[in-house]
Amino acid sequence: MSESLEREERHLARMLRKKAVIDERIANAPNECGLLLVLGGNGKGKSSSAFGMLARAMGHGMECGVVQFIKGRNATGEELFFRRFPEQVRYHVMGEGFTWETQDRQRDIAAAEAAWAVSRQLLRDESIGLVILDELNIALKHGYLDLEQVLADLQARPPMQHVVVTGRGAKEELVELADTVTEMGMVKHAFQAGIRAQKGIEL
Amino acid sequence: MSESLEREERHLARMLRKKAVIDERIANAPNECGLLLVLGGNGKGKSSSAFGMLARAMGHGMECGVVQFIKGRNATGEELFFRRFPEQVRYHVMGEGFTWETQDRQRDIAAAEAAWAVSRQLLRDESIGLVILDELNIALKHGYLDLEQVLADLQARPPMQHVVVTGRGAKEELVELADTVTEMGMVKHAFQAGIRAQKGIEL
Repeated sequence: MSESLEREERHLARMLRKKAVIDERIANAPNECGLLLVLGGNGKGKSSSAFGMLARAMGHGMECGVVQFIKGRNATGEELFFRRFPEQVRYHVMGEGFTWETQDRQRDIAAAEAAWAVSRQLLRDESIGLVILDELNIALKHGYLDLEQVLADLQARPPMQHVVVTGRGAKEELVELADTVTEMGMVKHAFQAGIRAQKGIEL
Repeated sequence: MSESLEREERHLARMLRKKAVIDERIANAPNECGLLLVLGGNGKGKSSSAFGMLARAMGHGMECGVVQFIKGRNATGEELFFRRFPEQVRYHVMGEGFTWETQDRQRDIAAAEAAWAVSRQLLRDESIGLVILDELNIALKHGYLDLEQVLADLQARPPMQHVVVTGRGAKEELVELADTVTEMGMVKHAFQAGIRAQKGIEL
């Protein structure tokens, strides 16, 4: 048998085994339930992944809510874009800027608490299929919010509602509670080569 | 001095140092250039991050292109959503399904080559600000495409064009060429608990 034919056969055998495993997993998995996802780590992709899921959910006709716990220097591309769909997305930019920008702990705490009050409304609304809590981890890491209260509100949400939490330094208890957790590791970042944040990529 | 006042002062001093470092970095960074991003790893978030960047870029009015190298069992939420904007996004779903679904190496190679032909058109078009090559890494990993040709086409693209490549098992040479590389590590995934892929999250 030629080498390339052998390769084809090995490939086919491998893929048949893989298909059997995956088909079985899919058949046995429960149908639908609300997931809690936590996207952490230092790498690029946490918030953008959350906003990709927002687009996905909108593609399926779901109503969604967004709370951004940190406000950038300028309106971000995601804000400019998703605000075009007020009938499908409730979009809230609540923070006062990065903590090293505001330099006022009390103001940051007040902003975080206001953001959580809005988040809680979304977490109590059965019509909302997906809630994005962008950079909530930062607010929790700095102790701006009561972790126990946040965990309790997340657990009390409607059973079919998905929640995505982003930001570095996720609290252990939140990771514990979550269904899916990704740590985005930075292999390299353009910033290290002195390249400024780019529109459409970071902004 | 009270403990809480001390805490405030330490916080302020830390944030002032942080602000100085970041302000200097921003001042010294070049203004604009096209980035090559690679999003790999086993964790959840690779494709969704790419689609979040697509939304960002659209928010800034950029024209974009998408090539999906693997076609799912059904139309995904991202496809349903972004096809609503044909004037701003050229959306191509080219693959024949996951390799363990098709079980036909020659058909997979033909599909990957057709997908690359479409990708190359986008990579030669100056009007396109962002190109997403979703799951290209899978096609490269299985040897369905000529890596040298892919790298050459990426390097020959317009200097202001951003490209995002997703998929597990990125080739070393592609990582080398990229400006920003994230490895999405799976801390945990709902699938491990037997929960099926959910609309708006994975689909």
